This record gives sequence, structure tokens and C-alpha cells, in this order.
Amino acid sequence: MHFPALEQLVDLLGSLPGIGKKSARRIAFHILKSDPENSRRLSESVLRLRQEVRFCKQCGGLAEADLCHICSDTARDQSLLCVVEEPSDVFSIEDTGEFQGLYHVLMGALSPLDGIGPEDLRLKELSERIEQHPFREIFVATNPTLEGDATAHYISEMFANRGFRFTRISHGIATGASIEYADRGTLARSIRERKALSDAG
Amino acid sequence: MHFPALEQLVDLLGSLPGIGKKSARRIAFHILKSDPENSRRLSESVLRLRQEVRFCKQCGGLAEADLCHICSDTARDQSLLCVVEEPSDVFSIEDTGEFQGLYHVLMGALSPLDGIGPEDLRLKELSERIEQHPFREIFVATNPTLEGDATAHYISEMFANRGFRFTRISHGIATGASIEYADRGTLARSIRERKALSDAG
Repeated sequence: MHFPALEQLVDLLGSLPGIGKKSARRIAFHILKSDPENSRRLSESVLRLRQEVRFCKQCGGLAEADLCHICSDTARDQSLLCVVEEPSDVFSIEDTGEFQGLYHVLMGALSPLDGIGPEDLRLKELSERIEQHPFREIFVATNPTLEGDATAHYISEMFANRGFRFTRISHGIATGASIEYADRGTLARSIRERKALSDAG
Repeated sequence: MHFPALEQLVDLLGSLPGIGKKSARRIAFHILKSDPENSRRLSESVLRLRQEVRFCKQCGGLAEADLCHICSDTARDQSLLCVVEEPSDVFSIEDTGEFQGLYHVLMGALSPLDGIGPEDLRLKELSERIEQHPFREIFVATNPTLEGDATAHYISEMFANRGFRFTRISHGIATGASIEYADRGTLARSIRERKALSDAG
């Protein structure tokens, strides 16, 4: 059974994150069976994404021009910089409506096991931005993982004694979750980082 | 955060089988970050599949011409017909090297809950083939699921008393699997359909 066109698509789909060989085959058959119009749309959409969306030259987030709409928005708090791992993290934080400052996307997190060192992240760009711009607070919102924590620590050491406030996104039990089902790591951290309900005395 | 090109691709990817909204987003970001050459290849590959691969006019399996290479192969056993649900099942059975006959792909299985009735399967085509061709054996290799079993039963009723041998793919514990971890349905069926190790007497 040799269908080069099918095998090629299965290989390409199988190299996408989260898609194994079996899913790739299932998707290829789905494409084969569906309306030709659908497959044309999918094919065009892949090209269109690359043509219309790029990474912001300043923050590394998603943009449709050289600068993204957050970096170009002078109404935002220019003294507050939020450092995140991925462009999609900007979406999540924007969704909350809680943050009015600027962003800096690292494009990953330190992970020596995967061969990702400081030079693979957008840390040089961060350093340049911080030098050129008088930020008041650097808010590090990398993930609460081994890699994200290591990255946050690395950044705080890198820019120590520069006179701005360093903050880290808080960790703990998710809103609406139950303590019983929280994983041990999260629970341990939410105990260590417990907050005062009211100051004593 | 409004990126129509990204949203369109996430929607299209999310409509593929086994890909949810989160995976679709992850894949879209992967495409955005990867080499433009990769996304061009993926885009072309989707179109190429539809251009080069079609369904065989006779068996319904995959073909690069009107007839697939199995239907056109006169060296195969023309008296033996294997009925399967999907074109991919032909691949799996061919991989075993155990079957030398022809195939008939139904393009699904009976599933009243999903609104799939006999008229949605390639049963009319099966009927025509059986009338025009003197098959000796019809080997029904639909899946051992509720739907596959119902379909096998329907076919055996449909062509009852036509003078050919009806066979069904055997079910049981998978080779190399353990009885302890077999699901109850499989185990029950493998007991009901147990085979004699040696004939008594």
C-alpha cells in the first residue's frame, strides 16, 4: 500500500505537537473524505497565518505589523513589564483584564535537559529593553514549573540591584478547585507562600 | 487580541478529529514558529492528498486511479471478499500478509444513534458486486464494537441463503496481552468463542 501523498501528509501532521502517527492517519483520512472546499481552506489558512501574523519586534508577542498593538498602545502603563514564556501567555493574561503594562515574551523557559539555555531565550532583548527604558516593576509570569521557576530566578539574578521592583506571579490552589484534589507540589507551595488574612496586632 | 488568520486556523484545526481547541492553538503556534518552508510543505501536502488520492470505484479503498491496485490485481483470489468499515482497515489487513482476496469498504458502520443507517454505507455497491461476481466466501471484518457487530449481522441477513460461506473476523484477547488487564467485554467474548485445543475423542 503505497500512497506517497498520504504518507507525506501523515508524516507532516505527525510532526506537529500532540499528534501521533495514528491521529495523523485519522486526520488525513478525514481530510480525504471531507468536502474538497474544506481541505482547500485548511491549506490556505496555514499559508495565511504565516503571511499575516508575525512576532512583534519589541516584545516577541503576536503582531500583524512590526510592533504589536500592545507595544504601540501609549495608553498602557509604560513603567510595568510582564515577562512571559510564550506569546499565548499574553492572550491569557490579557483575558483577565488585570494587567495594563507591557509584555516581554521569552519564547520558552530555561531547560538544560532539553538543551535550552539563556542564549536560546529572548533575554538579550530583555536586557536591552530594560536598559533603554525606565521600568518601575518587572513582573515575572513564567509558569510555576521547574523550568519557569528557574527562569524567573535567573532573571531576578541577572537584573539584581537595578533599582526596580521584582514581582512573581503568585501560585496556589486554583480558584474553585478543592484542596483534596490539589497536587502535592501546588499544595506545598500554597502553604509556604500563605498570605496573612489580617495583620496580627 | 484579534488575529483573524490565527483564529481561522485554530478553528479549522479544531474541527479535525481528535484535536481540541487547546491542541489547535498549540499547533497553530508551532506552525507560526517553525521554518516557513515547513508550513508551505504542510499546506501543499493537504492539497496534494486530494489531488493524488481518491477512493476506488469498485471497493471504496484508496486508489491513485479509478481502480485501486488490489482490484486491478488479477493474481489475487477473486472468490474471496473481505468487507471492512474504513479504507484504513485495508491497510491493517494487508500489513498482516494473511489475506489474498479482494476488499469492500463500507465507509462506516451502522450506528442509529449517530444517524448512520444502511443507506449511508456502501451496501448497495456490495449487493451489486455480489450479484455480478461469484464470490465463494464473504469475510466480514468490521470492528468488534456494537456498531461493527450490528453491521456484520445486517450483512449476513441481507445476503442469507445465497450459497456462499460467511465468515467473521475472530475476537479475543490480543496477542501478547494479559487476561488480567483485558476489558470485561473482550474477555467475555473470548470465553464464549473459545476454541478446542484438540478435538475430544
